[in-house]
Amino acid sequence: MRFRVYTRLKYQVAGPAYFLMNVAVAKNKLQSVLEESFQTSAKQTEEFTLDPAGKRIHRLTVGDGNLEISYQATVECFHETLGVDSLPVLSVDALPSDVTGFLYPSRFCQSDLLARLTVHQFGSIAPGFERVTAICNWLYKNVEYLGGVTTSSTSAFDTATEMAGVCRDFAHLAIAFCRASGIPARFVSAYAYGLNPPDFHAHFEAFLGGRWLLFDPTRLAPQTSLIRIGTGQDAADTSFATIFGAAQLQQMEIGMQLADSSQPAPEYTVAAISNLPSFS
Amino acid sequence: MRFRVYTRLKYQVAGPAYFLMNVAVAKNKLQSVLEESFQTSAKQTEEFTLDPAGKRIHRLTVGDGNLEISYQATVECFHETLGVDSLPVLSVDALPSDVTGFLYPSRFCQSDLLARLTVHQFGSIAPGFERVTAICNWLYKNVEYLGGVTTSSTSAFDTATEMAGVCRDFAHLAIAFCRASGIPARFVSAYAYGLNPPDFHAHFEAFLGGRWLLFDPTRLAPQTSLIRIGTGQDAADTSFATIFGAAQLQQMEIGMQLADSSQPAPEYTVAAISNLPSFS
Amino acid sequence: MRFRVYTRLKYQVAGPAYFLMNVAVAKNKLQSVLEESFQTSAKQTEEFTLDPAGKRIHRLTVGDGNLEISYQATVECFHETLGVDSLPVLSVDALPSDVTGFLYPSRFCQSDLLARLTVHQFGSIAPGFERVTAICNWLYKNVEYLGGVTTSSTSAFDTATEMAGVCRDFAHLAIAFCRASGIPARFVSAYAYGLNPPDFHAHFEAFLGGRWLLFDPTRLAPQTSLIRIGTGQDAADTSFATIFGAAQLQQMEIGMQLADSSQPAPEYTVAAISNLPSFS
Amino acid sequence: MRFRVYTRLKYQVAGPAYFLMNVAVAKNKLQSVLEESFQTSAKQTEEFTLDPAGKRIHRLTVGDGNLEISYQATVECFHETLGVDSLPVLSVDALPSDVTGFLYPSRFCQSDLLARLTVHQFGSIAPGFERVTAICNWLYKNVEYLGGVTTSSTSAFDTATEMAGVCRDFAHLAIAFCRASGIPARFVSAYAYGLNPPDFHAHFEAFLGGRWLLFDPTRLAPQTSLIRIGTGQDAADTSFATIFGAAQLQQMEIGMQLADSSQPAPEYTVAAISNLPSFS
Repeated sequence: MRFRVYTRLKYQVAGPAYFLMNVAVAKNKLQSVLEESFQTSAKQTEEFTLDPAGKRIHRLTVGDGNLEISYQATVECFHETLGVDSLPVLSVDALPSDVTGFLYPSRFCQSDLLARLTVHQFGSIAPGFERVTAICNWLYKNVEYLGGVTTSSTSAFDTATEMAGVCRDFAHLAIAFCRASGIPARFVSAYAYGLNPPDFHAHFEAFLGGRWLLFDPTRLAPQTSLIRIGTGQDAADTSFATIFGAAQLQQMEIGMQLADSSQPAPEYTVAAISNLPSFS
Repeated sequence: MRFRVYTRLKYQVAGPAYFLMNVAVAKNKLQSVLEESFQTSAKQTEEFTLDPAGKRIHRLTVGDGNLEISYQATVECFHETLGVDSLPVLSVDALPSDVTGFLYPSRFCQSDLLARLTVHQFGSIAPGFERVTAICNWLYKNVEYLGGVTTSSTSAFDTATEMAGVCRDFAHLAIAFCRASGIPARFVSAYAYGLNPPDFHAHFEAFLGGRWLLFDPTRLAPQTSLIRIGTGQDAADTSFATIFGAAQLQQMEIGMQLADSSQPAPEYTVAAISNLPSFS
Repeated sequence: MRFRVYTRLKYQVAGPAYFLMNVAVAKNKLQSVLEESFQTSAKQTEEFTLDPAGKRIHRLTVGDGNLEISYQATVECFHETLGVDSLPVLSVDALPSDVTGFLYPSRFCQSDLLARLTVHQFGSIAPGFERVTAICNWLYKNVEYLGGVTTSSTSAFDTATEMAGVCRDFAHLAIAFCRASGIPARFVSAYAYGLNPPDFHAHFEAFLGGRWLLFDPTRLAPQTSLIRIGTGQDAADTSFATIFGAAQLQQMEIGMQLADSSQPAPEYTVAAISNLPSFS
Repeated sequence: MRFRVYTRLKYQVAGPAYFLMNVAVAKNKLQSVLEESFQTSAKQTEEFTLDPAGKRIHRLTVGDGNLEISYQATVECFHETLGVDSLPVLSVDALPSDVTGFLYPSRFCQSDLLARLTVHQFGSIAPGFERVTAICNWLYKNVEYLGGVTTSSTSAFDTATEMAGVCRDFAHLAIAFCRASGIPARFVSAYAYGLNPPDFHAHFEAFLGGRWLLFDPTRLAPQTSLIRIGTGQDAADTSFATIFGAAQLQQMEIGMQLADSSQPAPEYTVAAISNLPSFS
């Protein structure tokens, strides 16, 4: 499907500062950028790509005053639907070595502390597609989607008990449950179609049957509309802006439309779905 | 029933120190001390009683060297079984004013953080005797009784997720669930019959129908064998020893026997039971 | 000094609910109420007094709809200035027994976790008036007074590291440092003169030389203008409103004036000062 | 310098399990393995290398019963001493892109929560070699090296307040202070000469002047004796054993000797020192 996405950000900066911006869409075999522009009032801008999923960072060097950032792109993305039967659960000895890194606890996903709760809540369900689906359903049913009750330091350990939060909190808890189940899992930041109000979105991926499958326990946007921006351990390394220096966000606008209004609208699915090519 | 209880404690003390010992059994209308002795090598000892439940503190002034404490008592205690039907749930406006203090979160029972989890887990059960029983059953079934996985700083918030611990952890989480349900609840330290290995025990009380009812989610000792020592918000103010100064526990012995071997053995019950007289 | 204080609160309530309001000024020998009124749209109101410091609770029974509470009083309060030389530090064995309860850690003042930090930061200062003053000065100098960075679940343990917060966070950390120093300390909610914007205030008391002395590490209001409302372990049991049921605060107004404009304005002091009579 | 290192581990395993062992010494340009052997009773063993620092994982597939692992190696390592003047602090815009990942908070190093404390404690020291040295000195002076007070879930946020711990706690807090200073920092597990009792060691690296410099705030072993095993965000991804399944460590032996007794003994240094080659 083809989408147009854009974001405009305005910061007030005091003194010299550096920004690591992660707002450009990732480039990989299943997601390509047809055209894009990244404009900024920064003194200096450098772009680099960080991982196989195609995460792109714009590193800005900024002085005193206003900083404006404007990004827009037209993106083509493919979401592959996979037969669940072709998704055998990989045991640890069959995981690609670079995937094992997503089995460890991280800043916001303390899977080590959630080991017993995971067994208690999900121990009776085979640890594969069915368990990840059960984790998502449990979150959707039991955790209240609610702004303003969590902060940027809220973690999966908190949400397991406090049971309310926003998309990043849902993703963190789901990831922690997966890792505690022995399933590699990671955080994905995204543009998502139809969010109200429009905002950056967060969902997660679990590694099953040799593929990174996409899951969104919030059910706030059709999976086929999720456009990958960044991929990482959790929100700690997948923020749209990491700032070194003193800066205040003053304005933020974000939007997403169908690039071609004649194409069918994105749809929800309960199938296994991936927007990253297989490893091989 | 009549029991003989004793404890012997040995500390290594460096420099001047003060101990607030809470090992003597409480005295109240349903629990009387037939004879007892409290012996110590402390320089100075003073005893005072703190609350209506009869909590007794021995305050010791200690110098350098060994401190030995030896306590033994013969106790007669009554546990009243109450008809559940005579236990209407008291709404907040009907609580005795000094009971309202046990509705607040405390050091180890962060009921404020457990509000949603309580609704999620127990919201469908009427908040009275039935709910407190459900809380105890849930703890017994889901939290693993396991030494060495928790420390003296583990709290209800931790145990809600980590799901393992010892008697004080069980009591803390039960109390937090009760308070989050609007039911006053508090921590009780106790001598308990038949613990293996022998140790101080912890259980809790919930205020229902105008009475403090006794509950023990660990099911490690028959309720009619629980001899009250201290009563408080949680383990923070109900420790058997609070020490000001540098001291190391070196030896601890504790024991409990039937005072009269011809009396029937203590028994488990699922009835509502209290070992404190009614307020009136 | 004489002050006029008032507060007006408006809540939106869904379903039956109970409120424990703690907005009326405390009554004790050094603080008397010349006239007051407490008006509310609640179905039922009951008042009770809880402790020797004179904390007063209005317990409201409320139905669906708007709840309005309006309180105003004219208060006369005395703040005694004490010679520091007459404030020998009391060792644990000389404390009144009901004061020992303020040596324990509580929900928001985890003095147990702050033991080493206290020694490290304040160990070289004798644990008496001088140390409590040093604690206040340290807080004033090092913790940034900043709204919006803490929440109602922020505790002393957090503030020790995060180093920013509002009056309740300052009081919590100061109390934790005191208790970890072996000095009984407790939380006081208050009306305070000249706050901008007007709000309820929080400060703390430390027990030295047989008296509860008043300290305010925020330095936001002259000590002689602090009118006691509630006294407790920490904000957990000293909130201006504890609500059982579903309610939303919609409006809050609070104010304080000199009752007699010809009297001298309240002043800051570095002396030892108390607004509670001596125990005797 | 040349060293001989060895470790022998014995586990009791129940059911099928997978182990990711990280006990083999890393291989890179400044650290080479002259000879080694890795023996195990596992059913299947696979080795892979994970990062530019040469971290090596042995992935074991294990069945019921005892698992024995025995590793020994003779290693030659070089530690380069660098002139501090040749270590300009790199601003964020000059960092290699793969180094930026070590600026983010992680499971045990919550640099986001330590931002103000870092400014407060170290804000007056230029953020370069001097600041990292100050961080190490502060830790050495103020945090007590003490076994048994921390657990495997203790984090930098805890240690900042609790001020006691072992080598991994020292490394975690140092890393958090560095990242909060804008200095990339990471965790290193190591064999270290002269530890008493012998054990795996942990220290950390900070990225300064285009090099990963080595720091050890515990001062428990001469820096030139530190043999790198693993490198990672923190102990979460740098453990000597990550186990999937039920297993109990039953025995652990570890040792390190000079390979050639005629060589000079390893020495402590206050110079800037690195055991990884420069990026270029």
